[in-house]
Amino acid sequence: MDYYALPIANLVDQFSKLPGIGRKTAQRLAFYVLEMDQQEAERLSAAILEAKEKIGFCQVCGNLTDKPICNICSSHNRDKSVICAVQGPRDIVAMERSKEYKGLYHVLHGTISPMENIGPQDIRIKELLQRLGDEEVKEVVIATNPTVEGEATAMYISKLIKPLGVKVTRIAHGIPVGGDLEYFDEVTLARAMDNRREM
Amino acid sequence: MDYYALPIANLVDQFSKLPGIGRKTAQRLAFYVLEMDQQEAERLSAAILEAKEKIGFCQVCGNLTDKPICNICSSHNRDKSVICAVQGPRDIVAMERSKEYKGLYHVLHGTISPMENIGPQDIRIKELLQRLGDEEVKEVVIATNPTVEGEATAMYISKLIKPLGVKVTRIAHGIPVGGDLEYFDEVTLARAMDNRREM
Repeated sequence: MDYYALPIANLVDQFSKLPGIGRKTAQRLAFYVLEMDQQEAERLSAAILEAKEKIGFCQVCGNLTDKPICNICSSHNRDKSVICAVQGPRDIVAMERSKEYKGLYHVLHGTISPMENIGPQDIRIKELLQRLGDEEVKEVVIATNPTVEGEATAMYISKLIKPLGVKVTRIAHGIPVGGDLEYFDEVTLARAMDNRREM
Repeated sequence: MDYYALPIANLVDQFSKLPGIGRKTAQRLAFYVLEMDQQEAERLSAAILEAKEKIGFCQVCGNLTDKPICNICSSHNRDKSVICAVQGPRDIVAMERSKEYKGLYHVLHGTISPMENIGPQDIRIKELLQRLGDEEVKEVVIATNPTVEGEATAMYISKLIKPLGVKVTRIAHGIPVGGDLEYFDEVTLARAMDNRREM
């Protein structure tokens, strides 16, 4: 990378560490930043530091928040009898977009994965069980991803919760809306068939 | 964007101002930054400010550099009898990658564009002519893009330079190597035919 001056090369390097940003895109971003207003560049730089500084985990659900307890947990408009357990904070954003779910969340911060040496004690299962004791929860919807690890985690959690007399459900897996049958793998199709409902 | 805490929303906003970064990608980047090591995030933030602070324009060619005169202009291994005029600093990076060209560069920082109210005095044509007087230049290769503005700029510059007794050339336009005839527009094909060479 002899073509760039060092501060440019460094900026390209830093951008290319971000997910989905290859060398070419990183270079485009770096040159764009160099052509930006000074003020705009300062805003971008400061936004990174500020987000790191102010954002932490909600003490109740583990979501990302700038308060001790997140907006969803502290809202009076949510149904506190249902908790949806998700793998990460991004899943909450996706779920909220759908505007379908009105309950609370619980972020596990990962899945059980023996291959990566992540056991049940490494994700926030204990905290979920504690909430079931403290709060008036009637149902836990497990929304981990339909991967091997996600399924194993869902099974593990459901076995712990059922004896507590709390209903445990799993979000449905099947053909996405607008999807075309022929493009989905056999496992998805098998799930879609298993989960069929009477019309 | 009620789903995010303000510092996250702000970071997503800032990322989505970058070229080619939509809301979804900006969100992915923001969450990635929140999961980064503090140190890594600080490096990214600092790299932006440092690049803005240390990088300026080469006093000779107008390339981006952290010195008063860029590495290419101050190198003893470059052919100082040829100057390649390009629209922007990124074009230099692309050209250097090809390892074909060993001469100097001149960054115009734009093209003449009456539609956008950019006249010949708004891009670095004057500085190019000045270099032709000062330096021992025998040839100017005009490598502006083959757009209407790029062509007009090339024509304008060539008319100014020819009377000075300096050779003016234009980089060749045609079918890119590995390209398939049927996928290119008629203007490219016409150019490719016009520029044909005896084998």
